[in-house]
Amino acid sequence: MNLSRFLGADHPVEGSRVALLGAPFDGTSAFRPGARFAPSSVRIWSEVLETYSPVFKKDLSELKVADAGDADTFAIPEWGLVSEAIRDKVRWLLSRGSRTVLMGGEHLVTLPAVEECLRIHPDLAVLQMDAHLDLRDEHNGARFSHATVMRRVLEKVGKGRLFQFGVRSGPREEWELARREKTIVNDTAALRPTLEGRPVYLTVDLDVLDPSVMPETGTPEPGGMTFKEIQDAIYSLRGLDVVAADVVEYCPAPGGGGPSGAVAAKIIRELCFLVGGKA
Amino acid sequence: MNLSRFLGADHPVEGSRVALLGAPFDGTSAFRPGARFAPSSVRIWSEVLETYSPVFKKDLSELKVADAGDADTFAIPEWGLVSEAIRDKVRWLLSRGSRTVLMGGEHLVTLPAVEECLRIHPDLAVLQMDAHLDLRDEHNGARFSHATVMRRVLEKVGKGRLFQFGVRSGPREEWELARREKTIVNDTAALRPTLEGRPVYLTVDLDVLDPSVMPETGTPEPGGMTFKEIQDAIYSLRGLDVVAADVVEYCPAPGGGGPSGAVAAKIIRELCFLVGGKA
Amino acid sequence: MNLSRFLGADHPVEGSRVALLGAPFDGTSAFRPGARFAPSSVRIWSEVLETYSPVFKKDLSELKVADAGDADTFAIPEWGLVSEAIRDKVRWLLSRGSRTVLMGGEHLVTLPAVEECLRIHPDLAVLQMDAHLDLRDEHNGARFSHATVMRRVLEKVGKGRLFQFGVRSGPREEWELARREKTIVNDTAALRPTLEGRPVYLTVDLDVLDPSVMPETGTPEPGGMTFKEIQDAIYSLRGLDVVAADVVEYCPAPGGGGPSGAVAAKIIRELCFLVGGKA
Amino acid sequence: MNLSRFLGADHPVEGSRVALLGAPFDGTSAFRPGARFAPSSVRIWSEVLETYSPVFKKDLSELKVADAGDADTFAIPEWGLVSEAIRDKVRWLLSRGSRTVLMGGEHLVTLPAVEECLRIHPDLAVLQMDAHLDLRDEHNGARFSHATVMRRVLEKVGKGRLFQFGVRSGPREEWELARREKTIVNDTAALRPTLEGRPVYLTVDLDVLDPSVMPETGTPEPGGMTFKEIQDAIYSLRGLDVVAADVVEYCPAPGGGGPSGAVAAKIIRELCFLVGGKA
Amino acid sequence: MNLSRFLGADHPVEGSRVALLGAPFDGTSAFRPGARFAPSSVRIWSEVLETYSPVFKKDLSELKVADAGDADTFAIPEWGLVSEAIRDKVRWLLSRGSRTVLMGGEHLVTLPAVEECLRIHPDLAVLQMDAHLDLRDEHNGARFSHATVMRRVLEKVGKGRLFQFGVRSGPREEWELARREKTIVNDTAALRPTLEGRPVYLTVDLDVLDPSVMPETGTPEPGGMTFKEIQDAIYSLRGLDVVAADVVEYCPAPGGGGPSGAVAAKIIRELCFLVGGKA
Amino acid sequence: MNLSRFLGADHPVEGSRVALLGAPFDGTSAFRPGARFAPSSVRIWSEVLETYSPVFKKDLSELKVADAGDADTFAIPEWGLVSEAIRDKVRWLLSRGSRTVLMGGEHLVTLPAVEECLRIHPDLAVLQMDAHLDLRDEHNGARFSHATVMRRVLEKVGKGRLFQFGVRSGPREEWELARREKTIVNDTAALRPTLEGRPVYLTVDLDVLDPSVMPETGTPEPGGMTFKEIQDAIYSLRGLDVVAADVVEYCPAPGGGGPSGAVAAKIIRELCFLVGGKA
Repeated sequence: MNLSRFLGADHPVEGSRVALLGAPFDGTSAFRPGARFAPSSVRIWSEVLETYSPVFKKDLSELKVADAGDADTFAIPEWGLVSEAIRDKVRWLLSRGSRTVLMGGEHLVTLPAVEECLRIHPDLAVLQMDAHLDLRDEHNGARFSHATVMRRVLEKVGKGRLFQFGVRSGPREEWELARREKTIVNDTAALRPTLEGRPVYLTVDLDVLDPSVMPETGTPEPGGMTFKEIQDAIYSLRGLDVVAADVVEYCPAPGGGGPSGAVAAKIIRELCFLVGGKA
Repeated sequence: MNLSRFLGADHPVEGSRVALLGAPFDGTSAFRPGARFAPSSVRIWSEVLETYSPVFKKDLSELKVADAGDADTFAIPEWGLVSEAIRDKVRWLLSRGSRTVLMGGEHLVTLPAVEECLRIHPDLAVLQMDAHLDLRDEHNGARFSHATVMRRVLEKVGKGRLFQFGVRSGPREEWELARREKTIVNDTAALRPTLEGRPVYLTVDLDVLDPSVMPETGTPEPGGMTFKEIQDAIYSLRGLDVVAADVVEYCPAPGGGGPSGAVAAKIIRELCFLVGGKA
Repeated sequence: MNLSRFLGADHPVEGSRVALLGAPFDGTSAFRPGARFAPSSVRIWSEVLETYSPVFKKDLSELKVADAGDADTFAIPEWGLVSEAIRDKVRWLLSRGSRTVLMGGEHLVTLPAVEECLRIHPDLAVLQMDAHLDLRDEHNGARFSHATVMRRVLEKVGKGRLFQFGVRSGPREEWELARREKTIVNDTAALRPTLEGRPVYLTVDLDVLDPSVMPETGTPEPGGMTFKEIQDAIYSLRGLDVVAADVVEYCPAPGGGGPSGAVAAKIIRELCFLVGGKA
Repeated sequence: MNLSRFLGADHPVEGSRVALLGAPFDGTSAFRPGARFAPSSVRIWSEVLETYSPVFKKDLSELKVADAGDADTFAIPEWGLVSEAIRDKVRWLLSRGSRTVLMGGEHLVTLPAVEECLRIHPDLAVLQMDAHLDLRDEHNGARFSHATVMRRVLEKVGKGRLFQFGVRSGPREEWELARREKTIVNDTAALRPTLEGRPVYLTVDLDVLDPSVMPETGTPEPGGMTFKEIQDAIYSLRGLDVVAADVVEYCPAPGGGGPSGAVAAKIIRELCFLVGGKA
Repeated sequence: MNLSRFLGADHPVEGSRVALLGAPFDGTSAFRPGARFAPSSVRIWSEVLETYSPVFKKDLSELKVADAGDADTFAIPEWGLVSEAIRDKVRWLLSRGSRTVLMGGEHLVTLPAVEECLRIHPDLAVLQMDAHLDLRDEHNGARFSHATVMRRVLEKVGKGRLFQFGVRSGPREEWELARREKTIVNDTAALRPTLEGRPVYLTVDLDVLDPSVMPETGTPEPGGMTFKEIQDAIYSLRGLDVVAADVVEYCPAPGGGGPSGAVAAKIIRELCFLVGGKA
Repeated sequence: MNLSRFLGADHPVEGSRVALLGAPFDGTSAFRPGARFAPSSVRIWSEVLETYSPVFKKDLSELKVADAGDADTFAIPEWGLVSEAIRDKVRWLLSRGSRTVLMGGEHLVTLPAVEECLRIHPDLAVLQMDAHLDLRDEHNGARFSHATVMRRVLEKVGKGRLFQFGVRSGPREEWELARREKTIVNDTAALRPTLEGRPVYLTVDLDVLDPSVMPETGTPEPGGMTFKEIQDAIYSLRGLDVVAADVVEYCPAPGGGGPSGAVAAKIIRELCFLVGGKA
C-alpha cells in the first residue's frame, strides 16, 4: 500500500492512458481555505477503496493510470504563477497523449486546465457539476477567483458550450446570466445528444453534493445531491468523449478527518474509467 | 463581510420587517450541552451563503432584516431569569412591529417567545418541526425543560392549536398524548387549510433533520429528514401568516466544526423570507 | 442514567431474554483502526435515545435485556485468543437461553459468534448487511480478517445459507464468487419465504450505511443506504426466528465525536426487539 | 480491561479503603459545558496508565479501591436535586469507612462533598488547587455556582481553614477577599505544619494546570502549572490525613479526544494513594 | 456577555484610549491557512477570561477600550486591497488618538499598521516576538508575505530599530542577515534602556510560543516559549511608550476548537494594559 | 513543495548518507491504534519546517538525505510478515551504506531494525528515550509487542548495552528489572564516555515527551519532557557514532490534526544531522 500515490495509479506517466495531477491551490477561497491539502489527503483516503468498479465492471489495473504528482502551486499566492504551473503540467501530459484528471485545489484551477484542452480541442464543451453558478465577473476584488471561474470559462468556450448541473446557489445576476445563456441542465442523460461526438471537459465541484455527503468543502451549500445521484450523473456520460476532467473543492478538515476523502477519491476513481473509457 | 452579524441583516431594529434574536441558552440539555454557542456560530457560518434565495426568488436586501443581537441568557442557570430576558427582548421587538426569528439555544427558549406572541395573537397556532414530541410533563426533575416545552406550549395555546411534524421519538405516554390531542401531521401542505387566516408560530428543532444532515445537535435521532424535505415543508407554508419563528438545538461542536452551521443558517435565511413575506 | 451500560439493559444476565455483549477488537482493520472503543462509546451514546420504539411499539422494559459487558478482547493481537474469548462468552450466554446481540469490534468478531450459534442451530442461515462482500480467501497475509470473514462463514454454514444485502464493493473475484454462490439479495422482504422457519443470524456491518449517515467506520464506502432504508430492511424481518445478531465496524472518532454512536445504538436497540421478539 | 470502571478499582465498595464516585454535573458552567461526560471519559482513559506508581512505589492492587459508579446527577438542571444526590452517595460511602475521591463534574460538586465530610470531621481544612479563586458571592444570578463554590465552602469551614494554591484569575473583589482571609499559599510544602494532624479535604480543579497540559476544561486560563509541578504539590502532602478529595472540571472534548483524560486519570490515581495512604 | 465584541471592550471608538481592530487575512500562509477566522474566534474565547489582570492590578473597565470591528480584508486575495483597508482603519483610529491593538490575521498585516505608525512616529522602534525571522526578501514568488514581512519592516524603519525575540527558525541567509543587523535579543528586560523614550511597536507572532501552548497557528515550530515566559517578556516592557501592538497568526482549528483562543485573548488583554498604560 | 516526501530528502537512495524509511505498523497498540498513518502524516507536516537547523548550523541540503518510502507493513496483522518486511528494507539500505532513520509505527518496529544493525555492528549499544520501560516478557498474550520490545532488544544486545532515558511508567517488575540491569540513565551527557567509540542505535519513543507537547501518541503518560529537554538530550550525543535511529509512536489524530506532526518531524530532522554527522 502506497499512501503517496493514488490508488492503483502505478503506471509511469509515459504511455499512460489517464494521468492524475494534483493542483494544491486555495488562494481565492471565500470561506474556509485548506483545499491545498486535498491532493495529499485524497491519495491517502483512496486506499480505503477497491481498484475494481462494480458499475464500470472494470479494474484500474486494466487502464494505464499514472499519478503525475502535483503542479507546483502549494501556498503560492500569485495566481499568474499558479496558472502557469498548472498549464505547463497539463500541456506536458496532453502532449504525451495522457488524459488528465486534475485533483484540486479550489475551483479556479479548472481554468488553466480548460485553456490547455482548448488548444487541442477548439470545439470543447464543458460540463460543470456544482452547487454554485460561479459566474460572477469579479469577486472580492479579483477577476480570477473560484467564484468567477465559470464566467472566465464561458468567455473562453463561447456560447452554447457550457452546461451547469446541480446548481442551487448564486446572486440574482448570475441566475439571470445562466438563464440567458441557457447553461442550466437538470438531467445529464438528456444532454447526451448535445454532447455526442464532441470533446467534453467535466468539472466536478464537490459541493454539488449535499454537505452531509461532503462536509469537508470550502463553501458547503445545504440541499445538494446524494452520492448515488452524482454517481448516476457520471455514469450517464459513459461513451461520450470526455477528454479531461477535474474534481475540486475538497477541503480536508485539518489532516482529513472524515470520509469526505473517500467520497472525493471514489469520484476520481470513477472519472478515471469515464475519461479512459473511449479511445 | 461581518462575522458578528447574520448574513445581510444590516437594517437597524427600528423599522425592520424581520428581527433576528439570539437566545444562547442550554441549561436543560439532556445529552450534549453547548447550544449556548449557536447564535455566534450561526452568524459566522451564515456568510457561506448568498443573500439571494433561488426558491423565494428574493434577496435579503429586499426585506428589512435586523440582527438584534442576543438576549442575555448565556450561561445563566436560572430558568426564571432566562425566560424573562427572552420575553423582554421579544416583547420589545414585537412592539416595534418586527417579526422575530429566534435563534436558540435549546428548545425551551421557544416557550417565552410563544408566550409573548400569544399576548398579541391570542389565536396563535404553533407548528413544530422536530424529531421528538417534547410532551413530557416533567423531565430530570424539571417542569421547564427542552423535553417538556411543547407540553407547556400545548397548555398555553390549548386544544387543536399545536401541530407536530417529523416526530419519530418519545416514550409511549407522549405518543398516546399526541394521538389523543391529534397533534401529529405528516404533510404540511395538507395543513394549509387549517392554518389559513390564522397567526402561526413556527418552531424548527433542527434534530428533525437526520443526524447526517445535522450532526451538531444536542440529541440526534437517526432516521430523520433530508434538507430538501424540510426545505419543501417550509416552502409549503408560503403565504400563511407566520408571525414569528425559531430555529433551535444547533449545538456546535466546540467552535462549530462542520457545516451544521450552514444548515442552521440556511433555514434561518429561508424563515426570514417566510416570516417577512406577508405584510 | 448509567453510561456504563447500554440503554435500558438493566436485567441481570441470568434469566434475560436478550443479552448484549461487547467485542472490542480491531486487530485486522485494513484502513482506520479504533473499533476497539466501539462498545464503550455506543453505551454512552445509547442514552441519547428513548427506550420506546415507535415502530415495534414496544419498550425495552418489556423485554428482559441484559448488558453482559465485554469479552476480554481489547488490544489482544492474537486472533486465537480473541476468538476463544468471544466463543466462551457467547456459549455461556446461549447456554442460559439469552439471545445474543454482539457489539463489535470489527467484522471478524462475527465468526466465533456464528460458530457458537451453529453448535446449537446446525441449520443456521446468515444474513449480512454490508457494503463489502468480505469473501476474500486471504487478506494482508491473514486467513482470519475482516475482509475474509464471510468466506469463513460461508465455509461453515455451507451453500445457500449465506445472504448478502447492500453490498457495493469488492474485487472482481469476490463478485464472481458471490454470483456463483447466489448470495446477493436486493430485497430483504423477498427473502422472507426462504428464511421462514429457520434460525437466522443477522450481521450488520455499519458501513452498509452511506458514510454520511455513518462516518465513523473503518472502511467507509460512499454510495450506501440511508438510515430509513436499513431500518426498513430490519423491520422486514420481524417474525422470523432471528436467534442472534451483531452490529460491527463502528469505529468511533477518538472518544466518539459524532452521532455515529447514536446510529449504532439505535440499530442495536431495534435488533433487541427483533431478536427478542419471537420466543 | 474494563473501560466501565476506573483502572484497578476492582474492590467491592463494602470494605474498600478508597471509593471513587462520579458526579457528572455541569449545570452552572460559565463557558464550555460538558463536564457531565467526565466520569465516563476518565474511566476509559485511565486504562492507558499502569496501576503502579513509581513515586508512591505502590500498586493500586495494594490499596482496596472501589469504583462506586456515579451519583445520579447527569443532566439534572436543579441544583437542589444534584446536591442531595451527591450528599447521599458520599454519606453512604463515608459511613462504610471508604475515603472518597469524587470525580466531577464541575467545581460546584465539591460543596456537598465537603458538607458531608464536615459532618464527620468538624475541624476539616480544605486545600484548593485551582486557577480561579471561585470566591464570588453570586454569579450569573446564582448563589450556587462553580464560580461561588469556594465562597460557600469558606462560609462552611470558617476562617483560616481554606487554602488556595495555583490561583491566577479572579475579579478584584475576590483577590481582596482572598488577601483578607489569607487563603493564598504559594508552596504546599510550607503548608504542612498548618495541616499536620488535621483532617484535610483536597479539591483539584484541573484548570490549575496550564491549558497546554489540560486543554479540555471548562474555563481554561493560560499561565498555569506543568504536570510535574502539580504532581510535586500532591506528593508534598504525603503523610497528611487527607480524608477525601476530588478532581473536577475535566470537560472532555466531545467523546474525550485528547490526552486530557489521561491527565485527569493520573491525578485521580495518585490521589487514591494519597487518600488511602494513612490509616 | 457579548461574544461579538472583545471582552470588556465596551467603549465607543470616539474617545477610546485603546482600540482593537481585527484584520482577518491569511492570503500568503505557507502551511495551514485559516487565520482569517481569528478575530471572531478570539472575541468568543475572550469571554473565558476576567477583565481584571492580577499582574497589572487593573481592570479593563479602568481603561477606555473600544472594539472597532474588522478591517474589510476577509478572503480578499489581492494584497494591495488588503493593505489599503488596514491602513485606512489604523489611520482613522490613530487620528482619533486611540492606540491600536491589531488582531490578525497572518503576520503580513503588521506591515500596513507599522507604516501608519511611522507616519506619526518617524522614530518608531519595532519589537518582534516570533519563532521565525521572517526576513526573506521573497517567498513563494511574493515580495509581500508573512515570511518577508519583517524584511519589509526593516527596510521601512531602518538599521538598529528592529528587535527580534524568541526566534528559532529560518534559513541560513536570514540568520546571517539578523546577525549582521544585530536584531536578535535574548532578554527583553535588557532591551529597556534602548527603547526607553522612544515610540515602540510590539508585534507578537503567537508561534513564538511552543506549539503545546499555541497549537492553533499557521506554522508551528516546536521548542518555543511557555505562556509564563512570554507573559514575563510583555510585563518587562511596562512603562515604555508602546504606541501600538498586534497579535498575529492565531489560526483557529475550524471554529476554534481548543484553548489557543484563550491564549491569544489573554495576550491581547495584557497588551491593552501595556499599550494603554502610559499616557 | 512535495508532501509525499520528507522535507529536503531529495537525494536518491543510492549514494545517500542518510535514508529515511517508514514503518507504518500499529498491530500491538495497547490503547489508541493509528500509528500506521504516522509516516505519511509526518511527511506532510515536515514541510512546516525549514531545512536549516540553527543548532547543528547545517542545512539538510548539505547532507545526502533520501526518503526510501515505506516498508510494506501497513495493516498487516501478522508480526512475522511485518518483521521480515522491515528487516529486508533496512538490510538493503545498510548494505548501500545509508544510515537509516526509521519512522514508525509503534515501538515494536525497533526490534527488526536493531537486529539488522547488530548483524553489522555486533557491539551495538541501544539508547532508548521513552516514558515506558517496555520490558515486559509478554503483554496481552504476545511476546512481540510494543510493551515487550525493549526486553527483546535487551536479550539481543546483552547486559550493559541498553540505556533508558526519560522513563516514568511501568509495573513494579519492570522497574526491578531495570534497576537490576542498570539500564536507567538520568543524564545523557553523563552517558557519553560509555558510548564513545561504540556504534549506537537511538530509539525515540515520542511519548517520552509530555502529552502537552505530543498529544497524538498511542499511550500518553503525563509528566514528561518538554521539547527543549529532548532536543538538548539529542544534541548532547553529537559526535558519537550513532549508526541508526528511529522515531516511533506518533499516532496522528485521524488525518493528523495538530502540531504533533511538526514535533515528530523536527526530531526526525535533527536525527538526520545526528546520524549523518560522523562519517
